[in-house]
Amino acid sequence: MEAKILDTITKLTQSKEFEFPFIDSRSENLMPSTSELEKIVNLLLDILYPGYFSNTILNKSNLQFYLGTNIDKLKNSLYQQIKKGCCFNCDNTTENCENCGNNAYEKTLEFINRLPKIKHLLSTDIEATFLGDPASKNRAEVIYCYPGIKALTHYRIAHELLLIGIPLIPRIITEMAHSKTGIDIHPGAKIAEFFAIDHGTGIVIGETCEIGKNVKIYQGVTLGAKSFPLDENGNPIKGIARHPIVEDNVVIYSGATILGRVKIGKNSMIGGNVWITSNVAENSKILQRRANEIVFTDGAGI
Amino acid sequence: MEAKILDTITKLTQSKEFEFPFIDSRSENLMPSTSELEKIVNLLLDILYPGYFSNTILNKSNLQFYLGTNIDKLKNSLYQQIKKGCCFNCDNTTENCENCGNNAYEKTLEFINRLPKIKHLLSTDIEATFLGDPASKNRAEVIYCYPGIKALTHYRIAHELLLIGIPLIPRIITEMAHSKTGIDIHPGAKIAEFFAIDHGTGIVIGETCEIGKNVKIYQGVTLGAKSFPLDENGNPIKGIARHPIVEDNVVIYSGATILGRVKIGKNSMIGGNVWITSNVAENSKILQRRANEIVFTDGAGI
Amino acid sequence: MEAKILDTITKLTQSKEFEFPFIDSRSENLMPSTSELEKIVNLLLDILYPGYFSNTILNKSNLQFYLGTNIDKLKNSLYQQIKKGCCFNCDNTTENCENCGNNAYEKTLEFINRLPKIKHLLSTDIEATFLGDPASKNRAEVIYCYPGIKALTHYRIAHELLLIGIPLIPRIITEMAHSKTGIDIHPGAKIAEFFAIDHGTGIVIGETCEIGKNVKIYQGVTLGAKSFPLDENGNPIKGIARHPIVEDNVVIYSGATILGRVKIGKNSMIGGNVWITSNVAENSKILQRRANEIVFTDGAGI
Amino acid sequence: MEAKILDTITKLTQSKEFEFPFIDSRSENLMPSTSELEKIVNLLLDILYPGYFSNTILNKSNLQFYLGTNIDKLKNSLYQQIKKGCCFNCDNTTENCENCGNNAYEKTLEFINRLPKIKHLLSTDIEATFLGDPASKNRAEVIYCYPGIKALTHYRIAHELLLIGIPLIPRIITEMAHSKTGIDIHPGAKIAEFFAIDHGTGIVIGETCEIGKNVKIYQGVTLGAKSFPLDENGNPIKGIARHPIVEDNVVIYSGATILGRVKIGKNSMIGGNVWITSNVAENSKILQRRANEIVFTDGAGI
Amino acid sequence: MEAKILDTITKLTQSKEFEFPFIDSRSENLMPSTSELEKIVNLLLDILYPGYFSNTILNKSNLQFYLGTNIDKLKNSLYQQIKKGCCFNCDNTTENCENCGNNAYEKTLEFINRLPKIKHLLSTDIEATFLGDPASKNRAEVIYCYPGIKALTHYRIAHELLLIGIPLIPRIITEMAHSKTGIDIHPGAKIAEFFAIDHGTGIVIGETCEIGKNVKIYQGVTLGAKSFPLDENGNPIKGIARHPIVEDNVVIYSGATILGRVKIGKNSMIGGNVWITSNVAENSKILQRRANEIVFTDGAGI
Amino acid sequence: MEAKILDTITKLTQSKEFEFPFIDSRSENLMPSTSELEKIVNLLLDILYPGYFSNTILNKSNLQFYLGTNIDKLKNSLYQQIKKGCCFNCDNTTENCENCGNNAYEKTLEFINRLPKIKHLLSTDIEATFLGDPASKNRAEVIYCYPGIKALTHYRIAHELLLIGIPLIPRIITEMAHSKTGIDIHPGAKIAEFFAIDHGTGIVIGETCEIGKNVKIYQGVTLGAKSFPLDENGNPIKGIARHPIVEDNVVIYSGATILGRVKIGKNSMIGGNVWITSNVAENSKILQRRANEIVFTDGAGI
Repeated sequence: MEAKILDTITKLTQSKEFEFPFIDSRSENLMPSTSELEKIVNLLLDILYPGYFSNTILNKSNLQFYLGTNIDKLKNSLYQQIKKGCCFNCDNTTENCENCGNNAYEKTLEFINRLPKIKHLLSTDIEATFLGDPASKNRAEVIYCYPGIKALTHYRIAHELLLIGIPLIPRIITEMAHSKTGIDIHPGAKIAEFFAIDHGTGIVIGETCEIGKNVKIYQGVTLGAKSFPLDENGNPIKGIARHPIVEDNVVIYSGATILGRVKIGKNSMIGGNVWITSNVAENSKILQRRANEIVFTDGAGI
Repeated sequence: MEAKILDTITKLTQSKEFEFPFIDSRSENLMPSTSELEKIVNLLLDILYPGYFSNTILNKSNLQFYLGTNIDKLKNSLYQQIKKGCCFNCDNTTENCENCGNNAYEKTLEFINRLPKIKHLLSTDIEATFLGDPASKNRAEVIYCYPGIKALTHYRIAHELLLIGIPLIPRIITEMAHSKTGIDIHPGAKIAEFFAIDHGTGIVIGETCEIGKNVKIYQGVTLGAKSFPLDENGNPIKGIARHPIVEDNVVIYSGATILGRVKIGKNSMIGGNVWITSNVAENSKILQRRANEIVFTDGAGI
Repeated sequence: MEAKILDTITKLTQSKEFEFPFIDSRSENLMPSTSELEKIVNLLLDILYPGYFSNTILNKSNLQFYLGTNIDKLKNSLYQQIKKGCCFNCDNTTENCENCGNNAYEKTLEFINRLPKIKHLLSTDIEATFLGDPASKNRAEVIYCYPGIKALTHYRIAHELLLIGIPLIPRIITEMAHSKTGIDIHPGAKIAEFFAIDHGTGIVIGETCEIGKNVKIYQGVTLGAKSFPLDENGNPIKGIARHPIVEDNVVIYSGATILGRVKIGKNSMIGGNVWITSNVAENSKILQRRANEIVFTDGAGI
Repeated sequence: MEAKILDTITKLTQSKEFEFPFIDSRSENLMPSTSELEKIVNLLLDILYPGYFSNTILNKSNLQFYLGTNIDKLKNSLYQQIKKGCCFNCDNTTENCENCGNNAYEKTLEFINRLPKIKHLLSTDIEATFLGDPASKNRAEVIYCYPGIKALTHYRIAHELLLIGIPLIPRIITEMAHSKTGIDIHPGAKIAEFFAIDHGTGIVIGETCEIGKNVKIYQGVTLGAKSFPLDENGNPIKGIARHPIVEDNVVIYSGATILGRVKIGKNSMIGGNVWITSNVAENSKILQRRANEIVFTDGAGI
Repeated sequence: MEAKILDTITKLTQSKEFEFPFIDSRSENLMPSTSELEKIVNLLLDILYPGYFSNTILNKSNLQFYLGTNIDKLKNSLYQQIKKGCCFNCDNTTENCENCGNNAYEKTLEFINRLPKIKHLLSTDIEATFLGDPASKNRAEVIYCYPGIKALTHYRIAHELLLIGIPLIPRIITEMAHSKTGIDIHPGAKIAEFFAIDHGTGIVIGETCEIGKNVKIYQGVTLGAKSFPLDENGNPIKGIARHPIVEDNVVIYSGATILGRVKIGKNSMIGGNVWITSNVAENSKILQRRANEIVFTDGAGI
Repeated sequence: MEAKILDTITKLTQSKEFEFPFIDSRSENLMPSTSELEKIVNLLLDILYPGYFSNTILNKSNLQFYLGTNIDKLKNSLYQQIKKGCCFNCDNTTENCENCGNNAYEKTLEFINRLPKIKHLLSTDIEATFLGDPASKNRAEVIYCYPGIKALTHYRIAHELLLIGIPLIPRIITEMAHSKTGIDIHPGAKIAEFFAIDHGTGIVIGETCEIGKNVKIYQGVTLGAKSFPLDENGNPIKGIARHPIVEDNVVIYSGATILGRVKIGKNSMIGGNVWITSNVAENSKILQRRANEIVFTDGAGI
């Protein structure tokens, strides 16, 4: 083997930078597995939208068998991942952290209990999306093809997991949707029913956002933080409300950027490409100034 | 099994929300399969760009064998999916909807017949992309790595399928490209030859857009609808022309938003981040007002 | 077989458009394989972040075995791909281009030698990302879930490969990250340590950008070219510096577009959605004019 | 392409030997798929031996869900294969042979109805195997590891399929077991309960064998045909009873060969390596003559 | 769903026959997994025969990395399976049987410690096989292609696992070899070095066999039990020595059957197809009586 | 890491037993790959039996495309493996052994040229098998399910490869069939047309066998070597004719063992379980002496 390579191996072995997270040689408490979590999300798609993604012909008499089986499988796989997620945050590195195990089991059951609620919320999002897009042909197409629904399904699952107190996993799940759709909704955001996203690429909804009923947003919209206070060590202070509140019936067009803990009053319409860092009254319409339409007549490029 | 879980299974079994789409217990007419359609798109890549994606060494004498085999495979797989797509929209839920079967077969042959045309259009897009990007090293790199070409390949396939009258599948195919590239071109849009996309993430091209020859657009450009009329029930009226017309030789820079049935006259240049909702005359140059470059000298954050 | 299909096969067989790249019937010098390069990037993730992505429990005594094995595997697979990449650009189409083989082997060793440097640079990016985001819980979460780190890992690998003189492959690797994260960093860009990306979707960083230390950018930021000179044949002249220089400690907010060989002076802050095509002095703060906040009171849509 | 190869392609294309079985270009009625049938057999293993092969933790409350799901899946997959099997034998080459479809559906239901009977018969075989082998540790080990049980499971499934009148598939299923275990039981053989096979490699049980209760056979035993009458064309006449009848409580040791329509009377024991072509009375013990134990004292090899 | 099917589900749900082995709803202590054990055996092939089965180019400097990694992986996977095997036999059905866990860990280390011994024994078997077969071209071919070596590799691994006191798994491992090679060696048999098997199909070597050095056996040889005593309940008494002892330098030709606790004296040769149930003196040659060569001259079939 | 494990790694690293076969660190000349050879055999099945194993609907017009594609793929994969096989035997360990490469390419073409001959011989074997088995329903069933045809297909492929002078690979291919069917035909044996195997498990046909036309053999038949001369070092002398010659129209029943360079004269019939080590005249019928049918009347076991 080349000396150069042996030298590289030695350097990397001795490197202190981001040391591998677990060091107990018998521990089975690895990090949650992204590939297992993808399988879990696919299982949840089968449970929430039976007959759409599973290549199975369902009817009234076999539905209960498939749901029963899928939820039992969900329970087992999700329990394993939640346990890993809990241990990732706890200090006990022995093989079988009993506390995390019990904890994870209770949280798994609690999450399963919330599935009907999640399904109901998603049904309102599908309705809003269908009614809001002249290009959509029927509700099945919305479920099957619309990236906004894909992102909201991931978000609504992740949000409940976060509320139940599960670390790390909610973020992994919303990042899956981010990667596939370009829509980045933090699992901590609060979003009421009948939420519609069109196209979606580039949307960012921050951790402390609160969004009312019947809101619609387009691609490239940012609901972000402005700046954030630092503690005495110069580190950002975690957990402060720093993202917008969007009230009921608001529409925000593509590319709009709304930053900070501002309130967009109900029934308002925010035009595309605007930049907002202060409150907007109810029933407002905000547009970018038309003055930017300057016609050059010379041949110069930009 | 925990009572909580059995309760959830019961609730979900009885849920009326978005019931599974097919209910006939012997039907084989499931929804089109996303994974089958991905294989079909990969087959089409092998047919349209022989030697690029297939890990096969082609030459003049073996090319016909590979093309013949791939097109025969395409015929069989595409026929199955088109049949599912047709049945998805028809009312006949018996096992073998003869009408959809015949229909699907004719449409499959018609689509195959259009492959040389699709290949020709894509060759013009590749040429335009290569000439328009100083960073591109050769045409093979453009075919192999450029997300714009990936998105256009999906779009041009989907557009022909739509013209032939195939439901659902064109939208699934353009969403594949949307997910991989962040470029969202509705299969209904009409795009002439020599179309170039650079970077591409966040581009939206709506259902009734019409784009002329030799047009180039950058990342984050929206060619969208403004608002749309509702029918007496408050539902959007489908199928009305509501997206921009972009004439020949137009360039649109990153982040520009053009909404509604407006016309961008030929040879125009639209600068980045502008917001346009009315017609632009031929040979125009539209830029965002420089006035936004305000220099603050105090230490305040945004 | 239908006459229509045979006719299509004939037409496609005779098509002269983008002929398959290799024509020697015994050549093994196919194009680099995207799927092999994905495996190589996963191997590099295991080497750079041991214990994070490999489902393996590492400790001080087994780490050297895993690193040794992974680097040996890397050497073999990367060598094969680099050889294909070299041959893709050379004129020798015989089976075993000895020159490319030797070349590829030297380049492979050189790349492996740079792994500790790549790891160090990434550790600074992780630190900057963690400190800059109040929503991040710990450094492990940043490594595991943040798309910005995924994109930078691909970029820093690809950049070193480019510096060593390997064609095509660097671009394929950054496009992988582009597809997964919506972040498009050209491998030719120069980026110093402690670089942080938040959210990231829609970011474009062009081929000749130069970015200083401790810079932070948000989603939708473009660091692009304005226009570029053509040669006497109307083709763009390759390799001219045409993208921005961003100095140390600059922050650029979401949706900002900076075009051309302009300099953003150190310690500056560029607000969201602005459009910049000329130099910005040190310590500047540039914001979009607030004047765009126009409130309509009538009921008209946009 | 080399002339030699083109020549071979032409020769093989024009070859008339065993022409491919289906020639209608739109037919979906391909031959039954061996890989689909392997999945079906694995599904049947999960149904017949719940908890053994499925990596699932079963209990009284979730068992019904898994059984319901597996039987529903079985119904769909088996129906497809049975339909192919029926069409393989019928003359109708149109796409959807309605007759075969209806037929196949009835046969599928009938087979599912016989699963409890199959399970019961196998439970007696397991009991007999466990009691008959001092090396077996418990019944679970017998189910999990014993090739005799694997072969009998395949046989008992195939036998019922044959009785229901399904062509080709029963033979494919017993050949799967033959390949894995070296035990070749023709699906037409009739075998009563409490049948035990030890080791098993090389066992052959012919099409018209009839085996009573509580019979045990060892590896290398042949229950075969002697010779068979030919018809006027010199072809063997099909369907004539030509294999042994083995009555209750018989044991046959390794390597014994019993040929023709002879009867082995109840309670008999057949020693190893014997060759029997005529009836054996009840309660007999047949052994190979000891006379073969000849001791050579010279140094010659065999 | 058809009533017939629902009826079958009910019957199978209520069936008491071979109830699924584990009933605690939270238990992770499933049965050992055959597919995991196949991966473990493949890992052992890589460890015992480095460079033969792994598609890796080994040399003096990288060998230690591969061995170290493979043995670390072996430790983790084997530990999991041994733990399942231990729990399969113990009464504790709680999630984490601490006793079995500790036990399994010690046994895993002990097994790893015996790998050099296993490798040495196999090297003698390879030598004996190579020297004993004029058709073998070199030792590498023997390792790579000979079913006898495949069976012995499985056996020698399984035998050590059995000696260490691991239940169930040794039998699963020898059955893997039985299925692939038709050679059925019980893991309990004792076999000294330089053992050669030619062809092998149909060989059976029983649980209490003892085989000396430098023995060679051919296909179809049975070293089995004659009959075995029953206890007062009519069940076979387990663990009694009931299979042959074969001393050093014996050769046994194809199809020979040797039954019971008999001794085949050293340097003997047992001819093909013989049936032996009593001791054979040292230096004997036993052949089947030639008298069976009867020439019929009439035209009758057998 | 446990000291025991580190100790094992050290011991195994230093072990001199069967050192890995290749030691040049840049060599790509690994051993032929069993998994690649399995794919090659499956490709050959598609070529020799079009429409049987490929899940493709073939007809007169698409057949040439599939054959052309499959033979081109065969050429590429087989060439790679033959090259590895050649290098395995040669002394040149540099990366690209040009001699082996050229050699391998010629041999690959030569083999492809022999495919029509192989197909013809197999068609006679299928005919003989169909006519000889009353249980066979049609020729398609024989092709699809009969292990004898599977073994002969492997053998006839391997035999031609051996005649062309390719090392190692022929043996690997016949061992594949041996593992799946229990039929062990050495690739060196010479077998004329119309050869039929029934059941087949346990059949051994040695390296220097010569078998005439229209021969039929049953399960458990050995055509083996008796003993073989050693050279001055005690090693067996390779390549001496030492297996039986079986002339035209011979039938050999199950379990017969024929050893040594003896001739079985044409039209003879060899009964089951006999042991033959000398010539048999034409038109003979050899049976095991009936005298072994001894009836015991006492209750003693064997």
